[in-house]
Formats: sequence, structure tokens, C-alpha cells
Amino acid sequence: MSTTPRPLRNVLFIMADQLRWDYLSCYGHPTLKTPHIDALARRGVRFANAFVQGPVCGASRMSTYTGRYVSTHGSAWNFVPLSVGQKTLGDHVRPHGVRCAVVGKTHVEPDVEGARRLGIDTTQGAGLLAMEGGFEPYERDDGILPAGFKVEGNRYCDYLRAHGYPGDNPWHDWANSGEDDKGHVLSGWEMRWADRPARVAEEHSETPYMTRRAMQFIEEQGDRPWVLHLSYIKPHWPYVAPAPYHAMYSPADVVPARRSQAERDDPHPVVRGYMDTDPSRSFSQPEVRERVIPTYMGLIKQLDDQLGLLFEFLRAKGIDQETLIVFTSDHGDYLGDHWLGEKELFHDAVVKVPLIVVDPRPEADAVRGRVVHELVESIDLIPTFLDALDLPQPTEWLEGASLQPLLHGQGAGPWRDAVFSENSYAFRDPVRLPLGRPVDGCLMTMVRTHRWKYVHYEGVAPQLFDLQADPDEFTDLGQDPAHAQVREQMAGRLFDWLRQRKRFPSITYDDIEQWNRREVQAGIQIGAW
Amino acid sequence: MSTTPRPLRNVLFIMADQLRWDYLSCYGHPTLKTPHIDALARRGVRFANAFVQGPVCGASRMSTYTGRYVSTHGSAWNFVPLSVGQKTLGDHVRPHGVRCAVVGKTHVEPDVEGARRLGIDTTQGAGLLAMEGGFEPYERDDGILPAGFKVEGNRYCDYLRAHGYPGDNPWHDWANSGEDDKGHVLSGWEMRWADRPARVAEEHSETPYMTRRAMQFIEEQGDRPWVLHLSYIKPHWPYVAPAPYHAMYSPADVVPARRSQAERDDPHPVVRGYMDTDPSRSFSQPEVRERVIPTYMGLIKQLDDQLGLLFEFLRAKGIDQETLIVFTSDHGDYLGDHWLGEKELFHDAVVKVPLIVVDPRPEADAVRGRVVHELVESIDLIPTFLDALDLPQPTEWLEGASLQPLLHGQGAGPWRDAVFSENSYAFRDPVRLPLGRPVDGCLMTMVRTHRWKYVHYEGVAPQLFDLQADPDEFTDLGQDPAHAQVREQMAGRLFDWLRQRKRFPSITYDDIEQWNRREVQAGIQIGAW
Repeated sequence: MSTTPRPLRNVLFIMADQLRWDYLSCYGHPTLKTPHIDALARRGVRFANAFVQGPVCGASRMSTYTGRYVSTHGSAWNFVPLSVGQKTLGDHVRPHGVRCAVVGKTHVEPDVEGARRLGIDTTQGAGLLAMEGGFEPYERDDGILPAGFKVEGNRYCDYLRAHGYPGDNPWHDWANSGEDDKGHVLSGWEMRWADRPARVAEEHSETPYMTRRAMQFIEEQGDRPWVLHLSYIKPHWPYVAPAPYHAMYSPADVVPARRSQAERDDPHPVVRGYMDTDPSRSFSQPEVRERVIPTYMGLIKQLDDQLGLLFEFLRAKGIDQETLIVFTSDHGDYLGDHWLGEKELFHDAVVKVPLIVVDPRPEADAVRGRVVHELVESIDLIPTFLDALDLPQPTEWLEGASLQPLLHGQGAGPWRDAVFSENSYAFRDPVRLPLGRPVDGCLMTMVRTHRWKYVHYEGVAPQLFDLQADPDEFTDLGQDPAHAQVREQMAGRLFDWLRQRKRFPSITYDDIEQWNRREVQAGIQIGAW
Repeated sequence: MSTTPRPLRNVLFIMADQLRWDYLSCYGHPTLKTPHIDALARRGVRFANAFVQGPVCGASRMSTYTGRYVSTHGSAWNFVPLSVGQKTLGDHVRPHGVRCAVVGKTHVEPDVEGARRLGIDTTQGAGLLAMEGGFEPYERDDGILPAGFKVEGNRYCDYLRAHGYPGDNPWHDWANSGEDDKGHVLSGWEMRWADRPARVAEEHSETPYMTRRAMQFIEEQGDRPWVLHLSYIKPHWPYVAPAPYHAMYSPADVVPARRSQAERDDPHPVVRGYMDTDPSRSFSQPEVRERVIPTYMGLIKQLDDQLGLLFEFLRAKGIDQETLIVFTSDHGDYLGDHWLGEKELFHDAVVKVPLIVVDPRPEADAVRGRVVHELVESIDLIPTFLDALDLPQPTEWLEGASLQPLLHGQGAGPWRDAVFSENSYAFRDPVRLPLGRPVDGCLMTMVRTHRWKYVHYEGVAPQLFDLQADPDEFTDLGQDPAHAQVREQMAGRLFDWLRQRKRFPSITYDDIEQWNRREVQAGIQIGAW
């Protein structure tokens, strides 16, 4: 390129939770219409092959926030602390005067033990930020509060109480539950009540609340640069939507489950374990899908409407011209596909996510509305943000690649031809115990190319899918003799990937390059005669 | 075992720097007699196949101090900061009331950037300890001070000044230099002066000084439990010994270099690079070996004499009956073997180290004086220490295995059949630049079994040695067609090893096992209908 693009001032990094890639009309959903997100895609680039680094919230998000694979950052699963040794997005932008904050969910589990060991004051400043994964907690809310749990210090719960929804846990009792004819609470934790409207007015439900909080943040900032992670809790369970979204879709709008009888009859041993968990048993029943999925769709519809308001807000103020806008998800939801519920495994229903990026600069004009098919990963986001803000790339930390060449229609050049995702079934007794595996022997690693998906399991047979012949991933070739060579090649890719991880981030590449010169300057002479 | 051994109170963890495994008489050196270390071996167990995790000081030591492989702890080379996210020996014993201190060298490079990011006060308490790799710096001294460097705040230099050795840098000018007839300083950084006596009286040289400091620490402790890392700087360069040790050995005592003409004529490309560095060029000259090695031997002899005093001190006070005593090294020294000087590669001259462990308890009586041939690693030391003190094993952190079964003659049971060591030549321009490799593409990884040694290089041919047919490691089978299958097997071991690393230390195995129960207790119901 002849000229460097002008730097952008802000990044608006929007994430939905548990949003499947194919539950948006721009990604091809036949009955769910999401015009505002579709319009976003028309203004920018839509990635058709975007993958997350882990199929559960916590691990996936920590990869997005650190720009590193799960087994590099070490936060293996939900609620596993993010080590104080890891650097996050905020650490890379804040020193350059960019405010970095969150509205909504991060699922960051603080490394309290690490903080104690290091004598860190976690109540303020750098220590507090480290406990928040580098995001200033403008409005931190992970939105997972069991029934009966007494909620204190949660701003959204305070808001609900102030608006006529009292109690210890208004998040549960009002925003995430329905009610029966007598006004008794029907908990959203039980999916059978998914067709009931939430007990709050729509404007008081989580999605509009978080949208308004994002607008407040942006207003307050004025011209000062920011990265805002607007991280919606929905359409993650509890599957409860406020009126009118609870009734906007009916069983007739539900697409059929993608599953085959053969999958159920002879599953891979690890998949069998997941089939034996509550979510899978529930979602294998047609009545559950028909009750839950319309509400899941309604929650997405509500999100789309709120994003419409947000994008109009940005446009009206001209902020959109200074801001990289990113919309994605942390993983999908099986919703009964493959006889599974929830997430945790590596079918595209879970590890493929929507990803739309709008770069307002003229360099991106030629590719607006384009669909990009390159394999991209959530760890690519931090490098992309840093490029947009024209900040340095700490290559010793970041395992992803900036998407800017793809956003500017320059072609990817030599681009990765495989993506990786990791999880462990150590946290799931119904999976681990029947296999008799030790807790440190339950890692699962996916390597996926355009053609093949290979999942490596320690001590258990691998899985292999031919995505060209079998895009629905119904036929596991993990033990097919005819595919031994493909499996070997895929295992070889895994080996290559493991060797090339960024395991030495405490020294910069530049410092390494300068090493010999500095040694000489310091007067250290080794081996001189 | 029917009964649990009584816990020991202390661990005395002695390390020499750059001491080759075969430069002790108990390990077979023909002319260098080390009766005190030999006696230690008779009182305990001598390991014939002990290996370090890295062939340079810093990386090797950080593995010993963290109990983790180099690419797990991330301190890739000398002076690469040890991340604040890593836990060390001190973190595992101090909470149990055991004082953990160092006398001498650790080569820990503080993670100043990490401390700043986290707002850690590094001047005291937990923050200071983190900057010291978990060792209370009772007498921290790395002993690498260039000529002309102004030394302030170093206790040994203050000691020298107080004893009649003035100047900005008495470490260099007196303890590590000789002098000519006119009293001019002949710097120890130039190996040609290795036959000159140091300019200090023997009692003021580093090895006796550190020995006395260790005795002071032990005296002060009384009955309170401790782990003391007595970490001698010698026989590491500068190769300068005080009288009479400078003249105790002559060229006649020097064993011939282990090298073949074929090695020099057709070296592996990475080995060729190291052959082009100053230490290798120097040590390939017979006159250098004849000048330096007698002094290297003298320094070891002095160390042995000092250890004799220390062991007698412990015996006289009865402390030896309460103390696990460990003697080892951080790596060897080529000394001209294979046409190489210094270290950095993976021949046994460098990665095999002496390791002697004395457990005073009756459980160890039956095996005193025994030689153990199992493959052991320096990461096994922390688990061994914790076992001796009867402290919990944080298995989510530690990648090694306790040696206690071997120390108690129980047999190893299923024991590892391969050891691993890692390094990067990114820090060495004469190696990296001719190969045109990027700084993040210079990793070298050794996997060694009893029979085979395989070294993997990124983008460069591997090395393979048949240690049975070729114990001197003269014949590189890295490209021999007849050994393709062996190489494949060894690469497979490397792959297995990479997958099984302890990358998720922020959660304990117990917490993982309890996960499902805790989720239920917390009231989180996922997928309930």
C-alpha cells in the first residue's frame, strides 16, 4: 500500500453470548430476520469461517481477551482463574491513552491466589484491572445467578429494584423467570417455562439495559479514545425473553435439528458422555426444541433491535466514522443438533461464530458487503484492534493475525490454513468418569481446515470429518482405515501448532534480536582468549 | 510401605554452576579427586542419568526453581524475566512455615514489566520475593560483573573492600583476575590468564565466602525449618582460582577432548554456528584447554574442600540428621569437546549433571552408596523436597516426579523413559543469522532415552545419536535413511510430551474433580427441563 490508513479513535467490540453463527439472516437463517446486523454486514465484511478457540464461554473469551490459544493462557474452562501472568487487550491499549472498559459479561475469573501470592492490592488501580481481565468494569455483569442466590453489589439488580422489581435476586425472579396464572415465579433455569414472557417490561430486560449503558459510556467519553467491550449476556440461557419477543416466533419457525440416527446409535465415547448430560437429553426431545428455540430466536431479535438503536446513535453523532465496529459471539449452542445440548464439543454449531467487522475508512470501501471465506480465529481480534488504532503489535504475546488486510481488500497473502479450538471434559463427570480418565488426561483439541476437521483426544480415538463430503458432520472417520493418512497429516498439524506457540512472552522479539550487541556493550566477554 | 517416613525439617540444596557431570571422582574423573563429594555419594544415592531442562544457566535454573519445563515457565534463556505468573519452590514451602532463602546465584531476572503492570511493590514482602524467584535473598550474588562495571550494593564486593581489596569492582579486579609481575590486573574474562592465581587470599574468594554465609544462615535458623539454596558461582567462568588451587593441576591432568575430525568437517548447521562463536574457537585450541581446564579443576577441588567443611559443620551440630542434602549443577561445560566451548547444545557434556541426594532417614539406609540409573530431571527436585518435608504436591504446577521412591530403594515403579531439554539459538547471531531464521523460529528440543538422543530444530534437519553404539555422540544419524523410523518415534515422543504439559495451573486437580458437585451446590442447573 502506498499510504498508511489514518488511525481510528475507537473500537466498539460487541459480543453476544452463545449466539450460533447460523441464527442471523445474513448468515442464512430462513425465518429469523436480523436486519440491523445484516445492515452492519453490508457496511463491512462478514466472515464466513470464523472460529473460537474454545467451545465454552470462559476459555473462549480468555482467548479473545488475551489473543492467545487456551493452552497458552491456561484458563482451561469456565471459572478457571485467568493467571495474573497473562496480558490482555487492556494492557495493550491503556498505556497508549485508550480507555478500555466492559459493559456486560467477560466471565473473567480473578486469579485471587496469584494476587495474594504477589501482594497485589485488588481493590483499585492496576490490581483491580488485573482481576477484571484488563477491562475497566464500567458495568461488569456475567448474568449467571442461581435461584435463591442473594445478589449484592450488582448494578443491574439495583436498577431492577429501583424500577419496581424487588427481592434478593431480581435478576432471577423478574428478568429471567416467567410466572403462572397466580403470579408465582416459574424459574428460567427450567427450560419448560421458556415460552412465558419475562416478568419485566422489555425496556428493563438485560439487553436494552446494557445497550443504554454502552451509550452512556460513549457519551461520557466525548472525543477521548476508547475500546468498549459491549458484551451481551443473551441469547445465553436462562432462555427467557420479555414480551413481545417471547412470542415472536413459533415452532413453525424452528429449523430441524441436524442429527442422524447413526450418530445416536454409535457415538464416539466422549460424545456419548456429553449425550448423557442434562442439556443433551433435554434438547433431544422435540418438545424442548419447540419450546426453547423460539425464545432463543426472540432474544436474538431483541438484540438485533437494540443494535439498530445503538448503530443509529453512533451514526447520529458521527462516532461511527471514528470507530471500528466488531460483532461476534463467544460460541454457539447445539440446540439439539447431533443429539446434543449446550456446547463443549467442536461441531461447527458451536465453534463457528458470526463475525462482522466494519472499518469506516476509505481503504475499506471497495470491500463493503463482502463475504470473506478465509479461516479466522477470535485471537485475531486484538491484532486487528491494535492495527485499527495504529498501536504496536506485541508479537511475543499475540498468537493471532490482524484481519486488516482482509478488511481492506488487500487479500490475505499467505494466510493460515487451519484453525484450532481446545477444551477439557475433566469438568464433566458424566463424560470423564465412564472413561476412567484422570483429570489431567481429558484435553480435546480440534484442528480444522476448509476440508477436514480432526479432534484429538488423549487416550481415546480421534474424530475426523470430511466437511466437503459431509458438511453436517454426521460421519466420524476417526477410525476409518481409508483415512489413516489424513489423520496422520492432521495430527502433524497439531504437532506443528504446539511447537510454535508463544511461550516466551517475557522478552520482546526486538530485545532478542539486539541480544549480542547488548552483551558486547555491557562488557560481557565469553570465551575470549 | 507400611509406615510413612518422619518428615525432615530442612533441605540443603547445593548447586554448582557449569560443573560437568564427569568432573568429580565419584563420577569417574581419573585425575581430579573430590573426596567430600564422593563421601556424600556414599551416604546417599548418586544419579548416573540426571539431566537439566535447559543447557544455559537461566533457563535451566528457572526449570529447577519452578519444577517446570522451559517452554512451560517461559524464561527462554539467560536474563529473560521469570513471569510473575510462575510459582517457585518458595511459594510451595513458605506458606507451611518453611523459610526459603538463597546464598549465591539464581540468575532470576525479575519480571519488572509484569510487576509494573500489576502495581506490585517490589521493594518488600511478597513483591520482593517474586522478583527474586521466591528465594529470600539472604545473599544473592550472580557473580557476572564485567570489567569496569561499578558495583554497588553487592555484599561480597563490600566484604572484599572491607578486607583490603578496594575499587569499584573488587569482584573483577581482585577475586576474578590475576596480575602481572608489576601488579597490573590481568582480567579473568580473558582465558589466557587462567593460570594466574586470583588476587585474593583463598579465604576471601567466592566459594569459601558463600560457604560461610550458608553456615551463618543455618546457625541463625536454629530449630526453625528451612530450605537453603546454596548456589555456588564456581566453577563457572571467569576461570580464575585462588592459590593454591590455581596450580594444583597441570596439563598432564587434563583428559583429552572428546571430538572427532568428522564432527568438525561436516557439522549440523546449528552446531556449525556454535563452532563459530568465541568460546568454541578458543577451546578448539589445545593451549586453551591446557591453560583453562587445570584451573576449572582447581575450582572444583576448592568447592569439594569447602563442602567438606560444610558437611562437617552439619554433622557436628546434628543438623544433617534433619536435613535432605542435594548436590547438583545447572549444566556442564563443553571445554572443547565436539569442537565446542561453553554450553547451549545438548551433548551429555552439557545437559547431563551430577546429582547426589542424601536422605538421612532409616528408610534410605538400604540404598546408601547406590548408583541409580533411572532417567531423572532437575524438575524432579521440588517434588522431592516437598516429599521430604511432607508438604502437599501442587500437581497442577509441577511437571517432575518425586525421587523419594528411588531414595528409599522402593524401585521407581513405572518411571519416565525419556528426558527433555530445550534452548533457542535466537540469542546467538553467529548461529541464527547464517541460517536466516526468525527469532521465534529457533527453538531446539532434545528428547533423550537410554538409547537415543534426538534433537528437533524448527526448519532445520534434526539430530539423532545412538548412545549405545556411539556413547561419545560423534555420529549424527539425523539424516540417515536407515534411522527414519527411530526419528519418527522420537518426534512422536516430543509430540506426546508437548500435549501433556501442565498448562492449566490456575485450578487444582481437586477443584476440577469436585466441579460437578460444586455446580449443583451453587444452584446452577444447566439444561434442566
